[in-house]
Amino acid sequence: MLIDHLSIVGLGLIGGSLARALRKAKLVGRVTACNRGEDTLKKAVELDVIDDYTLDVGEAVKGADVVVIGTPLSTTEKLLPLIAEALDSKTVLTDVGSAKGSVVNAARETLGEKFSQFVPGHPIAGTEQSGVEASFAELFINHRVILTPVEETSDKAHKLITDMWEAVGADVIDLDVEHHDDVLAATSHLPHMLAYALVDCLASMQERDEIFKYAAGGFADFTRIASSNPDMWHDICFSNRDALLKTLDEFSGHIDQVKSAIESSDSEQLLKIFRRAKNARDKFISSRNNLDTSTE
Amino acid sequence: MLIDHLSIVGLGLIGGSLARALRKAKLVGRVTACNRGEDTLKKAVELDVIDDYTLDVGEAVKGADVVVIGTPLSTTEKLLPLIAEALDSKTVLTDVGSAKGSVVNAARETLGEKFSQFVPGHPIAGTEQSGVEASFAELFINHRVILTPVEETSDKAHKLITDMWEAVGADVIDLDVEHHDDVLAATSHLPHMLAYALVDCLASMQERDEIFKYAAGGFADFTRIASSNPDMWHDICFSNRDALLKTLDEFSGHIDQVKSAIESSDSEQLLKIFRRAKNARDKFISSRNNLDTSTE
Repeated sequence: MLIDHLSIVGLGLIGGSLARALRKAKLVGRVTACNRGEDTLKKAVELDVIDDYTLDVGEAVKGADVVVIGTPLSTTEKLLPLIAEALDSKTVLTDVGSAKGSVVNAARETLGEKFSQFVPGHPIAGTEQSGVEASFAELFINHRVILTPVEETSDKAHKLITDMWEAVGADVIDLDVEHHDDVLAATSHLPHMLAYALVDCLASMQERDEIFKYAAGGFADFTRIASSNPDMWHDICFSNRDALLKTLDEFSGHIDQVKSAIESSDSEQLLKIFRRAKNARDKFISSRNNLDTSTE
Repeated sequence: MLIDHLSIVGLGLIGGSLARALRKAKLVGRVTACNRGEDTLKKAVELDVIDDYTLDVGEAVKGADVVVIGTPLSTTEKLLPLIAEALDSKTVLTDVGSAKGSVVNAARETLGEKFSQFVPGHPIAGTEQSGVEASFAELFINHRVILTPVEETSDKAHKLITDMWEAVGADVIDLDVEHHDDVLAATSHLPHMLAYALVDCLASMQERDEIFKYAAGGFADFTRIASSNPDMWHDICFSNRDALLKTLDEFSGHIDQVKSAIESSDSEQLLKIFRRAKNARDKFISSRNNLDTSTE
């Protein structure tokens, strides 16, 4: 058994899918979950995602071998003092937050001696759906999980969390905390801001009904991520504030280039931007397809 | 037979798919195509998409019952004088350009008396692929085709083009020229600019290799349209210049709202934007699904 007793604090799409995958692979003994609302927990027992539950964070943490924090980032910071109090010295703690700097700082401050037991993590997986009802065991297969261990992180804890994610099919990579936050601001946080801002912009236009009526498949794809959980994304924005603001400024510079090429009828410049983007995107997709093949 | 002799000037994804669909439904007699490069035309004969071809626009147009212009918008404007010269009085002319104001103006100026034979059109269908090799007969099924007839447009010509698109499975709608251009600037042209600018922005960053390495499925969806044909989009930008610039400004206002909410730690405002966008997007998707069901 890889993990005798797993506890999930904040049971949603990620925690639910992890529990399903570990149970399916028979790599976990007991799975306990803790959540704010009891409905989700009852549902999770019915769906056979978890064995038992508690509404008390300390109770969920005490005695577990691994604790996975799956709450939105602001909740994680609020819960850390309670977790710190209940955390046994044998327990490995990890999280799944989309920004890492703020969590690492908060954990360092609150966990004290036990900070070495914390392995900061971020599975690059998910859909625009949320909640345990949307969870499925195959979510992590061929997806990357980024871990951002720091100097204090115990090697043993780091290895266990690496093994756990690899066991559910993920490709685990280590990155520096700051590097993770810069890269994710660009590839994930910025696109979410654009999708939210675009849909909000269109919804505020006079012709809004017709706009949505005549929108095609490209628009549905482009705005898929605008259906993501607003509370979760609110937390990510503030947790990765500096990197995100920097990236938003860089993007504004690029959209201004497009705008000014159109305004000044600069054909050559506009074509240059479009061709450069198409090349980069085609290259990204072809290397992604190669990765998929090589991991099959 | 709905159309005895169809001629396609500029054979790409749209013209090729239309030819395939009409042939499959046995609604067309002979299909002729005209293109700049002979390779495409030979390929199209091999693929059984067309019957014959010519490199001379006038020859392609003369004697046809319907002429579909499938070239990029700037080429359309260049070809219109040649088409005008060769156009028989019985021939109905239509196009498939993504912006309509500029084409309608150019056609009005060049076609003179024959302007009534022109039915401006825009099928809201396509993929990020282009070229006749990517064409398929089912492309238009359950997709909208917008026609923007003007006062001078002959009712008979308008009816024939409506029948043609309906025969290949499309849902045909009439819109005012200006209205079409405003709505499409918002739902299609703006998202393409954002996708191009985003990919170009990321590709210019120092961490570019890692950025593309850690990008996930959401990013692939979001940037799919950045793989679209740069030349085609270059033409669309200039053809729908005013509406697009206006829409780009409105979008900038919305992204600035997001930015300033993050900067000033205005939780409530940020959540309000995200929730409003999610509601609008969820509503769009659910009405889209209803449409799919009702047209099945």
